[in-house]
Amino acid sequence: MPQRVHRRTDRRRPEEMRPVQIEMDPLLHAEGSVQITMGGTRVLCAATVEPGVPPFLKGKKEGWVTAEYAMLPRSAAERIPRESVRGRPSGRTQEIQRLIGRSMRAVVDRRALGERTVILDCDVIQADGGTRTVSITGAYLALARAVGGLQEAGKVPPGVLLDSVAATSVGVVDGRNLLDLDYSEDSAAEVDMNIVMTGKGRIVEIQGTAEGVPFSKRQLNEMLALAEKGIRRLTRLQAQTLRGTSDRAKTR
Amino acid sequence: MPQRVHRRTDRRRPEEMRPVQIEMDPLLHAEGSVQITMGGTRVLCAATVEPGVPPFLKGKKEGWVTAEYAMLPRSAAERIPRESVRGRPSGRTQEIQRLIGRSMRAVVDRRALGERTVILDCDVIQADGGTRTVSITGAYLALARAVGGLQEAGKVPPGVLLDSVAATSVGVVDGRNLLDLDYSEDSAAEVDMNIVMTGKGRIVEIQGTAEGVPFSKRQLNEMLALAEKGIRRLTRLQAQTLRGTSDRAKTR
Amino acid sequence: MPQRVHRRTDRRRPEEMRPVQIEMDPLLHAEGSVQITMGGTRVLCAATVEPGVPPFLKGKKEGWVTAEYAMLPRSAAERIPRESVRGRPSGRTQEIQRLIGRSMRAVVDRRALGERTVILDCDVIQADGGTRTVSITGAYLALARAVGGLQEAGKVPPGVLLDSVAATSVGVVDGRNLLDLDYSEDSAAEVDMNIVMTGKGRIVEIQGTAEGVPFSKRQLNEMLALAEKGIRRLTRLQAQTLRGTSDRAKTR
Amino acid sequence: MPQRVHRRTDRRRPEEMRPVQIEMDPLLHAEGSVQITMGGTRVLCAATVEPGVPPFLKGKKEGWVTAEYAMLPRSAAERIPRESVRGRPSGRTQEIQRLIGRSMRAVVDRRALGERTVILDCDVIQADGGTRTVSITGAYLALARAVGGLQEAGKVPPGVLLDSVAATSVGVVDGRNLLDLDYSEDSAAEVDMNIVMTGKGRIVEIQGTAEGVPFSKRQLNEMLALAEKGIRRLTRLQAQTLRGTSDRAKTR
Amino acid sequence: MPQRVHRRTDRRRPEEMRPVQIEMDPLLHAEGSVQITMGGTRVLCAATVEPGVPPFLKGKKEGWVTAEYAMLPRSAAERIPRESVRGRPSGRTQEIQRLIGRSMRAVVDRRALGERTVILDCDVIQADGGTRTVSITGAYLALARAVGGLQEAGKVPPGVLLDSVAATSVGVVDGRNLLDLDYSEDSAAEVDMNIVMTGKGRIVEIQGTAEGVPFSKRQLNEMLALAEKGIRRLTRLQAQTLRGTSDRAKTR
Amino acid sequence: MPQRVHRRTDRRRPEEMRPVQIEMDPLLHAEGSVQITMGGTRVLCAATVEPGVPPFLKGKKEGWVTAEYAMLPRSAAERIPRESVRGRPSGRTQEIQRLIGRSMRAVVDRRALGERTVILDCDVIQADGGTRTVSITGAYLALARAVGGLQEAGKVPPGVLLDSVAATSVGVVDGRNLLDLDYSEDSAAEVDMNIVMTGKGRIVEIQGTAEGVPFSKRQLNEMLALAEKGIRRLTRLQAQTLRGTSDRAKTR
Repeated sequence: MPQRVHRRTDRRRPEEMRPVQIEMDPLLHAEGSVQITMGGTRVLCAATVEPGVPPFLKGKKEGWVTAEYAMLPRSAAERIPRESVRGRPSGRTQEIQRLIGRSMRAVVDRRALGERTVILDCDVIQADGGTRTVSITGAYLALARAVGGLQEAGKVPPGVLLDSVAATSVGVVDGRNLLDLDYSEDSAAEVDMNIVMTGKGRIVEIQGTAEGVPFSKRQLNEMLALAEKGIRRLTRLQAQTLRGTSDRAKTR
Repeated sequence: MPQRVHRRTDRRRPEEMRPVQIEMDPLLHAEGSVQITMGGTRVLCAATVEPGVPPFLKGKKEGWVTAEYAMLPRSAAERIPRESVRGRPSGRTQEIQRLIGRSMRAVVDRRALGERTVILDCDVIQADGGTRTVSITGAYLALARAVGGLQEAGKVPPGVLLDSVAATSVGVVDGRNLLDLDYSEDSAAEVDMNIVMTGKGRIVEIQGTAEGVPFSKRQLNEMLALAEKGIRRLTRLQAQTLRGTSDRAKTR
Repeated sequence: MPQRVHRRTDRRRPEEMRPVQIEMDPLLHAEGSVQITMGGTRVLCAATVEPGVPPFLKGKKEGWVTAEYAMLPRSAAERIPRESVRGRPSGRTQEIQRLIGRSMRAVVDRRALGERTVILDCDVIQADGGTRTVSITGAYLALARAVGGLQEAGKVPPGVLLDSVAATSVGVVDGRNLLDLDYSEDSAAEVDMNIVMTGKGRIVEIQGTAEGVPFSKRQLNEMLALAEKGIRRLTRLQAQTLRGTSDRAKTR
Repeated sequence: MPQRVHRRTDRRRPEEMRPVQIEMDPLLHAEGSVQITMGGTRVLCAATVEPGVPPFLKGKKEGWVTAEYAMLPRSAAERIPRESVRGRPSGRTQEIQRLIGRSMRAVVDRRALGERTVILDCDVIQADGGTRTVSITGAYLALARAVGGLQEAGKVPPGVLLDSVAATSVGVVDGRNLLDLDYSEDSAAEVDMNIVMTGKGRIVEIQGTAEGVPFSKRQLNEMLALAEKGIRRLTRLQAQTLRGTSDRAKTR
Repeated sequence: MPQRVHRRTDRRRPEEMRPVQIEMDPLLHAEGSVQITMGGTRVLCAATVEPGVPPFLKGKKEGWVTAEYAMLPRSAAERIPRESVRGRPSGRTQEIQRLIGRSMRAVVDRRALGERTVILDCDVIQADGGTRTVSITGAYLALARAVGGLQEAGKVPPGVLLDSVAATSVGVVDGRNLLDLDYSEDSAAEVDMNIVMTGKGRIVEIQGTAEGVPFSKRQLNEMLALAEKGIRRLTRLQAQTLRGTSDRAKTR
Repeated sequence: MPQRVHRRTDRRRPEEMRPVQIEMDPLLHAEGSVQITMGGTRVLCAATVEPGVPPFLKGKKEGWVTAEYAMLPRSAAERIPRESVRGRPSGRTQEIQRLIGRSMRAVVDRRALGERTVILDCDVIQADGGTRTVSITGAYLALARAVGGLQEAGKVPPGVLLDSVAATSVGVVDGRNLLDLDYSEDSAAEVDMNIVMTGKGRIVEIQGTAEGVPFSKRQLNEMLALAEKGIRRLTRLQAQTLRGTSDRAKTR
C-alpha cells in the first residue's frame, strides 16, 4: 500500500533549502550592506562601524559587535504595529538581536578589531519564516564587507574574522525532519530548531524547542545533521559572493 | 564680467528634478506597494487595508486613511538610533506622518471608501533629502493600487480616488530658487518649502519655513511656481506608471 | 435678491480680529512673562534664561531659543488628559512647540545672544482657537522682556533682537476668507492657514492645509493678504506694550 | 537683656497667615473654577464633572471625586521640567494629588453625588510654599461650585457636601512654631506639618514630618492648635466667597 | 446589659500587636539583611552600601540613606501585576519608599556616615496589612547591621546611628481604637494612622487619614498613645535582636 | 608528572550537583508555592490560577500557562536596579520568562486545563548561577500544587499534567564538562548550555551557546549526557517532594 507523502508548501524535498539570492552593497552610506532573499524571506543587513565601545568594555582594548533586528510593518501577511509605537522592542525582538550579536562575535577576534563597535542592523523587508537565521547569514556578509573596508584602510590587521558563520532552521512537521522551514511549516512544527555554525563546522548556537511534543536525543542528532548540510551550502555561497565582489572591487 | 554660477551637487539645473525610478508591487503581502527612488532617496511604501475605523469615526459611515513613516537606521550617512529604542516616535516623525496622512485624505472620498482604514507605511531605505515629499508621491501609488484592488473585488464603487497627489520641495540656496533639494542643498537652504498638490493643480498643503532669513511674498510665489512645474512632471509619471501596470495586470 | 450672509460666531466682520489684552510680567520668577488674551483664548508665556546650550551647539559660540507648549486640562470645553499621564507630548504638541521655537529664532541674532538658552513656556489657560498663533505673539513679548533684562544687566550687547514677530490664522469657511478663526470657525474651515511674520513684513513661516477641498494659488494670495493685515495690527500692539512697560520700568 | 527675635520673611507674626485673594469662575468651560492666591503662591483650580465612575466603583451607585496637581514649569524660581517630558508624574506629584482627592472625598456624600466623577485640576501658576494646602482650600471652592451647578440643574439632591474643607501648614523654624510657611521658611523647617480640617473642626488628614530633629507629643499639639486657628480663618473666607458669588449669581 | 464586643480577626485584644519573628542576615551578599514577620506580613529588608552620593549632595561631605519598596506579585490574596510591566512604580509605592527613606535618615548622622549611600530594599514576600510600618521596623535592623559592618571595618566612626526607629499603625474600626491593623481591619478602618517613632520616644512621622468620617483631636491623642505603646515593644525587640546577634558574631 | 586538577569553587566533582532544599507552600495566598534552594541560588515560585485566557486563545477551549521572572535587587553580589525603575523588563528577563513558560506548557494538557490561566512567578531571592534552570525545576512543583488543588476541587479532570519537567545547566570550563554551574563557573565558561527535560527523559528545550570558542557535535552529546544525569536526580526529588507533601495533606 502506497505511503501517503506530505508535500512541502513549495514542493521542496525535506532536505532542500529555498533558493537564495544575495545583493551586495545596496546601501550607499553603510560600511557594509547586503540584501539577502531566501524564498519569500528578504532581509536588509547593514553594518555600521563606530569608534568606541560600550561602557563595560572601556579600557579593555577590545572591540564589540552587536545587532539590532526589526520587521517592517508590512513584511508579514498581517500588518505588525511598529515597536516605536508600542514603546519598546518586544521580548522576541530582543531575543533575536542578542542571538545575531552572539553569532557574529563568535567569529571575530575582538582584540584585533580594536576599540570600535560594529552594529549589524537586520531589517526584515519581507517575512516567510526563518528571519533570524537569514539575518545571521546576511549579517555575516555585511560584517565581512565592513571588516574588509577597515583592513583595506589599514585600520585593522588581517585576521579579524576567524571564520565565517551562517545559520538555518530545521523542524519536525508531521513527524518528518524538514530543512529551512517556511512560515506555514514553522507554524505547524512540533519541534523547531535554529542552528548557527561556523564555516569550519563548529556549533556557535543551538536552540531547540518542543512546541508540542518533547523530542528524543536521536531526533536531536538527526536534525543537527540536516542543519549541517544546509549550513555547508550557505557557507559556500557566502565564500563565492565575497570572492566575486572583492574581485569586482579590484578590477574597478 | 561673467557672473559666478554655483553648481548643484549633481550638476542639475535649478529647475531640474532628480531622476525617478518606480518599482510597483515589490511586496508580496501588502494590498499595494511601491519602491520609489529619487536620486539618492529611496522609500518603500506599503498600503494595508484593514476593516473598521478609529474610535472618533465609529458609526459615521466613513473610512480613514493614515500614514506611518520611519527611517531605517542606516538610511543616512550617520546611523540613526531606532525609535523603538528611544521609546517613541520623535516630533519630526510624527509631523511627517501627519502630513502624509492629510495629503492622502485630500484625494479620497471617505464615504465611498466605506468603514475601512488604509494605512500607508513609508519606510526610508536610503535618505538624501526630500524623504517626506518622495513618501507622499510614492504613498499615492500604493494607495491607488490598494483602492484599485478593492474596486476590482467589488468592495468599493468607482470614484474613491478624487484626484492624484504628489509633492516636492523647493528652497532658496545662496539666493537662488532650487527645485527638489538633495540633503546637502537642504542643509544649506535659507528657505525650505514643501508643497503638496493634486493632479489638477490645486494646493493640498504648503509649508514654508525661513531657516535663517525671512522671505518676501514675491519669493513665495516664485517658489510656488517652481514647485508646480515639478509636481506636474511627477503627476504624469504617476499616471503612466498606474496605466502601465494596470495594463500588464489585465493582460496577465 | 439679497445674498445670504453667514455671521461669525461673535458677529465680527471677516477681516476683524478678536479683541486682545496683554498683561506684562504676571510671574514673579520668570525672566520675562506675559499673559495674552485674544477673545476666548488665553496663554501664559514665560521666558527662562539658562546658561549653556544643547549638545549640538557646544563650542559654536551661539545661543539657542526653544519653546514648550501645553494646554491646561480644563482649558477646553472637554477636559484634556494631562500629557504627563499619557507619558509623552503628543505629535500636535511637538509640532506646535517646534513652530514657536523656529519663529522666535527667526528674529534672534544667536551669536549676539551668546552661549545661553532661552526657553519659552507657553501654557494655554483657556482655548478658543488660534492657541499656536497667540502663543507666538505672546512668546515674542516674553522673549523681548528677557532679552531686555540681559541687555540691562550688560550680559548681551544691543541688537540681539533683529525684528519683532507675530502670528495669526486665516481660513476659508463656507467659501469666505476669515481672519483669526475661533474654535467653532476652525472646526468648520475648508482651508486652515497659519502665518508667522516679522514686524518688517517678511514671512517666517506659512502653513496652509486643505482640510477638505484643495485650494488655488489665487486663494492662497488672498489669505496671505488678510493675514498680513492682522499681523500688522499685532505688531503695533507689541511695540506699544513694550514701549509702555519699559517707560514704566524707567520711572520706577 | 532683650531676646533676639527672628523675623519671618515678610515680617508676619508667627501665627499670621499670608494675605489671601480668591477669584471665582476665571474659566469659561469648567463646571467650577477658582484662582486662589496666598502670598506668592497662586493656584488655578478647575472642577470637571464627568458621567460614570472608575471601574472599581462600577455598579455601586456611588460617585467619585479625584484630583490632579501640577506645577507650571516657571512657577518656581528655577524652571521645573514638564512631567510630560520626564514621561510620568513624580512621586511628589502623585502624593499630593492623592492627598487633595482624599480631602475632597471626606466632605462629599458619594451616594448623593450619584454615578458621576468630579475631577479637581490644581495647576500651580506660581509657587512660594504651601502649594498643596492652598490647592485643597481652592479645590473645595471649585468643587462647591460644581456641586452647586448640579444641584441647580436638579441632577443631585441638596446635601451632597457634608461640610467644607480647608488646609494649612505649620512648621518649626529655629525652634518657633510658625503658621503658613512660605518657601524659604519651609526649606529651613525642622518639622513640617500639613493639616486638613473640615469647617466643623474635625481632622481629615494630618501629616507631620521631622526633617531633621524628631519632635515630641507636646510640640505636635501646639502645632495642631496653631493650624486650627488658621484653618478657621480660611473656612470663614470660603463661606463668605461662596455666599457672595451665589448672591451675585441670583441677582443676575 | 452586656455590651456587644467585636472580635479582632485573630482574637487579639485592641491594644495587642501581632506576634513578631525576626531572622537576621538571610542574604549572603547584602551588607545587612533581615526577614521580619508580623502576623501574616513578611518583609525582606536588605541594606546595600555604595560609594558616592546623589548629585544634589555632591561635595557636601554628607552621606545619603534611601529606600525602595515593592510587593512580590503573589504576596497578596489577588496577584498584583509587576510594576516593571506597568512601566513605573505606582504612586503608592513611591509614597511608601519616601516614607521609609525619611524614617531612616531621621536617626542617621549623615556627616558621620561620609560620602556613601545606603539603600534599603524592602520587598514584601507576604502581605496582611502594615507592610510599610513593618518595612520601617525591619529596615532599621538591616541599616544597623550595615552601619555596624562599616564601623567594624573602621570606615565610619561610632555614633552614625543617633537612635533606633520603628513604626506601627493604629486605626479606628467600628469606633474602637486598634493597634497594628491586619488587612481586613485596615480595609474596614474609619481612621488609619501610621506613626514612626525613635527609641527615645520622639515622633519622626505621623500620618493620619480619615477614610470616611473625620476625627477629633481627642481621638488623635488616644491613637497616638496606643501607637507609642506598640512602638516601645518593637524598640525593645530591635535592641535584643541586635544585641543577640552581635554577641553571636563576637563569639564566632 | 601529576596532572594539575582544577577544583570547582565548592570542591564538587564535575558531575556533582549542588545540594537542593525544597520548602513547599511557603506562601499563604498562592494556589501553589515553593521555595527552592540549590547551593547559593534561592528562588520563590508562586502559581496563580486565574479564570480566562489571553485574547489569542479566546473561544478555543484551551487553557494557558505563562511565567514571570525577576531578581530581587540584592539577590546578587552587586545591587541590581529594579526593572520598575528602568521602566521595562530587560531582554534577558523576557528571554527567561518565555523559556519558563514554554517549559511548563510542554507538560500540560491545555484542553484538560480548560479556559483558565496559570501564572508562575519566579522571584530570585538569592543568585549564584542557574537561576533560570532552578526556576523551572521549582515552577513545576508550584504548578503541580496548583493543578492538584484544581483537581481536588473537581474543577479539572485527572491528567492535566502529562509529565514532570526539570532543568539544569552544563558548561565547559577550562576544557572540562561541568554539571550545574555556579556563578563563578558560569562567568568563566567557554560553552554554556541549559537543558529542560521531562521526567520521561525527553527534551523540551536545549539552548547551547559558545561564549568564546565554538564547540563540536561530540562535545554537544557529552554535555547532553551529563545534563540528563542531573535532571534525572531532580525528577526523583520532585516526585518525592510531591508525594511527601500530598501524604501530609491527606493526614491533616
